[in-house]
Amino acid sequence: MKKERIKGDDGRKLRVISLGGLQEIGKNMTVLEYGEDIVVIDCGMGFPDEEMPGVDLVIPDITYLVKNAHKIRGILITHGHEDHIGAVPYVLQSINVPIYGTRLSLGIIEGKLDENPPPFEPELYTVEAGDVINLGVFKAEFIHVNHSIADACAISIKTPVGVVFHTGDFKLDVSPIDGKMMDLTRIGEIGKAGVELLLCESTNAEHPGYTPSERTVGSSLERIFTQYEDRRLIIATFSSNVHRVQQIINASANHGRKVAVLGRSMVNVIGAAAELGYMDLPDGVLIDVNDIKRYKPEEVTLITTGSQGEPMSALYRIAFGEHDRVRISPRDVVILSSSAIPGNEKLVGKIINALVRCGVKVVNDSTEDVHVSGHARGEELKLMMALTRPKYFMPIHGEYRHLYANKDLAEFMGIPSENIFVSELGRVLEIGKKTAGFNGTVPAGRVLVDGSGVGDIGSVVLRDRKHLSEDGLVVVVATVDMDGGYIISGPDIVSRGFVYVKESEELMKETKRLSEASLEKSLAKHSGDYAYIKAQLKDDLAKFIFKETKRKPMILPVIMNV
Amino acid sequence: MKKERIKGDDGRKLRVISLGGLQEIGKNMTVLEYGEDIVVIDCGMGFPDEEMPGVDLVIPDITYLVKNAHKIRGILITHGHEDHIGAVPYVLQSINVPIYGTRLSLGIIEGKLDENPPPFEPELYTVEAGDVINLGVFKAEFIHVNHSIADACAISIKTPVGVVFHTGDFKLDVSPIDGKMMDLTRIGEIGKAGVELLLCESTNAEHPGYTPSERTVGSSLERIFTQYEDRRLIIATFSSNVHRVQQIINASANHGRKVAVLGRSMVNVIGAAAELGYMDLPDGVLIDVNDIKRYKPEEVTLITTGSQGEPMSALYRIAFGEHDRVRISPRDVVILSSSAIPGNEKLVGKIINALVRCGVKVVNDSTEDVHVSGHARGEELKLMMALTRPKYFMPIHGEYRHLYANKDLAEFMGIPSENIFVSELGRVLEIGKKTAGFNGTVPAGRVLVDGSGVGDIGSVVLRDRKHLSEDGLVVVVATVDMDGGYIISGPDIVSRGFVYVKESEELMKETKRLSEASLEKSLAKHSGDYAYIKAQLKDDLAKFIFKETKRKPMILPVIMNV
Repeated sequence: MKKERIKGDDGRKLRVISLGGLQEIGKNMTVLEYGEDIVVIDCGMGFPDEEMPGVDLVIPDITYLVKNAHKIRGILITHGHEDHIGAVPYVLQSINVPIYGTRLSLGIIEGKLDENPPPFEPELYTVEAGDVINLGVFKAEFIHVNHSIADACAISIKTPVGVVFHTGDFKLDVSPIDGKMMDLTRIGEIGKAGVELLLCESTNAEHPGYTPSERTVGSSLERIFTQYEDRRLIIATFSSNVHRVQQIINASANHGRKVAVLGRSMVNVIGAAAELGYMDLPDGVLIDVNDIKRYKPEEVTLITTGSQGEPMSALYRIAFGEHDRVRISPRDVVILSSSAIPGNEKLVGKIINALVRCGVKVVNDSTEDVHVSGHARGEELKLMMALTRPKYFMPIHGEYRHLYANKDLAEFMGIPSENIFVSELGRVLEIGKKTAGFNGTVPAGRVLVDGSGVGDIGSVVLRDRKHLSEDGLVVVVATVDMDGGYIISGPDIVSRGFVYVKESEELMKETKRLSEASLEKSLAKHSGDYAYIKAQLKDDLAKFIFKETKRKPMILPVIMNV
Repeated sequence: MKKERIKGDDGRKLRVISLGGLQEIGKNMTVLEYGEDIVVIDCGMGFPDEEMPGVDLVIPDITYLVKNAHKIRGILITHGHEDHIGAVPYVLQSINVPIYGTRLSLGIIEGKLDENPPPFEPELYTVEAGDVINLGVFKAEFIHVNHSIADACAISIKTPVGVVFHTGDFKLDVSPIDGKMMDLTRIGEIGKAGVELLLCESTNAEHPGYTPSERTVGSSLERIFTQYEDRRLIIATFSSNVHRVQQIINASANHGRKVAVLGRSMVNVIGAAAELGYMDLPDGVLIDVNDIKRYKPEEVTLITTGSQGEPMSALYRIAFGEHDRVRISPRDVVILSSSAIPGNEKLVGKIINALVRCGVKVVNDSTEDVHVSGHARGEELKLMMALTRPKYFMPIHGEYRHLYANKDLAEFMGIPSENIFVSELGRVLEIGKKTAGFNGTVPAGRVLVDGSGVGDIGSVVLRDRKHLSEDGLVVVVATVDMDGGYIISGPDIVSRGFVYVKESEELMKETKRLSEASLEKSLAKHSGDYAYIKAQLKDDLAKFIFKETKRKPMILPVIMNV
């Protein structure tokens, strides 16, 4: 007897859903679902853009995960960057699921959970590249890749419909600092055995060629250390780039310099990385920043945070003469061993301007090879496709421009267009034994975190903030007797962010007169109708103010009845 | 009898003052003063940065010029870009002085003065490269240079202490579109005769080598037109780059395409440039945008504004499907023949993402040579120094990083450090017959223009706007009887840009309760003391709200007495 399929029953299909990491950079999160089992890959945060004033960070909307919490077998972490782990503390407020990651990733997550502890004892499981984890119907294998943080992995997941290979963030580095090249052999074996779907990062898909080895930065540093052997060196980089920091320490040791570390996150990461064995600190090289005055400037390297121009960072405070222990000198050389993340160019420029104004020599990646990306460029992405030989392809981790550039690469590699799926947040890709296609959506989007509030800021609040920031505010307050239909007190006008009140006395007086006239007229005819009176007052004032100033401040009428 | 010098009398020295164009890009303005004569070079505007929400544009503080209006013999315009002419309408509101510039520059200025007419008939005098103008003790000679707008000039000014050479914005183009190479010969002659001070632009001073010829863009366009001969082409560029537009029109004509022009400023500039003879429009190539449907897509090129991602531009509206006459198709190819001005990267990225999402092929300067800069790089700047052989050198037009990079080039060219003056806004460089040095300052800075208000926005207003944009606003209003010491009505709480009120009902209720308690307590002890009552209320609420939400909204208490 043939069993009839129930409509909507898709039990025999794998569902692949991105809750983050698409359309915009950051907050990476991919969900694989099959029947009663879910695994989540990465759990990242993003940063607010200029349309979100006052927002601290952005996390994925996990409504779908909360609703299906009982199905989740685990969250797998590819590596320890914020855009892959930053949302863990927020997600663990709502769901209690085990987290799997390599030692460094979990070390960083633990630090975050200490600051923001979940309502239960979190289950964190350390894995190593090569480990295979059973998660319901899924079997996940961690595979070593190169990236701008140590201990990064791709994850290959066996599912009932075939293997899904998730690249994480990666690059190919044939001469990595820790000697561990990305495991091309294992990736090739998995590819030969057959990959159904490749989820492939897209960050650098627009750039042709190969990303240079991290080791090229070492050669540049060596040259710069020699060129400026008579100067103090101040080097800013990303604190999580353990190998970069290692190279700076090595170059310093080779040149007989002591190294002092500045900035909270830099101190924390170097401490953790050394403790976990990811860093090799030669004896006696590290000194306390309070001891730098015991050495000549040319005997010291300072490693610091602030490579993105962050206004409270150590480098910012040094550049603007606000650091309590490091005073900039015109003889200093500052190296920005980083590139500006899109949107941060002006902040970085501000620091450079402040430094050159002090006479400091600034070296950055526009003139010297003092930075390399951690992301695969075109040829490396194609190599990944060539090794994994996937049937289906889905570009992830990028804005549309990056996703579509990765799609072009996949087509170049011979993957048929109809097997390439550029998805959207929350869109469900269903993969059956023989077919694949989009089918429906789940709730997805951005949850804004501001202060201790998670999700209580939305488009209306942001629109108001933007409006307030552009033209300021005029508050009109009056106490009235609605029964009698007359004004008892006021109207008073208070403005903020609008014009200099002192220089605009006449304007403010006229605004007050006009408010009074508007109120009297409304009260005479529409007493008791708050909505009408307020709308009329707002309208009268808006017209007058625009005529006088060509501006449109937010107008807030407050009418109190006695 | 020897005449005693009066203290402060510096009649025999030339004073060189930058009122704009230093420290930040834009609003270029240089002042030369000798005794009773002043000439001003350029009169530009700048754009607001992220610290100036709601500000429309920024102009130089011209307090010093207004005070010395009787001395000003003229404003000399090097070329017609906004950062060199944009402040003319604002300056002419305060002072009536003649303006000298080439035909195209004055044509653009006339358009601006029509929109914003001065309170008198403005005196505009057209000059040509080679012309010499007498301006009091000064003699100004206009000299042809290459730049990203036609008819650009450097200006050599004879003064009683020697020649001051102002480069304007320039590049060397040995194969310019209009056939007119920068007048190296004349510059060399002036240099041989002796230049006292070189005022040299710095925009590209950080970049080594030479800026490529505008003609290289033509070769790229030719290749792209051939590659995509079966597609519609949409090309965005700066409307003022007449030669770029000319090359797009030429390529279209060569390939049998019709050209339609989109965007108000593009339509205006092409009209004006053609009328003034700066552009050669082959017969029948230009068509009205309403007629594009009569042609096949591959027979049409659209030239459009929006290359900086401007949200109201034609390209933006096309990309987001909001243009009333052009609908995007996946077969279209969009060429951004431009580079993003620092700070605009995200806006440009937004348009690119929208376009690729529609399936459109986007070509920009990161993958093809579809744009060249209009500014001299290192070798060209050094060439300028070699030809003019100045005694003194002052880098202008740039942030500190650019000014100091230009200083490095000057030192490389053998100009002694002590003869190089990196100035500040308003700082006065005095040049005598034998010496030069800084001496004092004049008022200078930024005047912000918002709507029709010029200068009525300052740091307090901006700080309030920023505060409002980051955490929003809580208004507390109450009507009280100060004599009786009790509340008559309220307190009412109104918030904007703070939290979703609906989802934060409890918080708002508690805020109301707390306000009531604070008011009652204050009224009982300090009735009549508005300042105390308001400060106490503000303080109580701020503490409570920060504790509850970790946010610091602006709190505006309004207390009305009956």
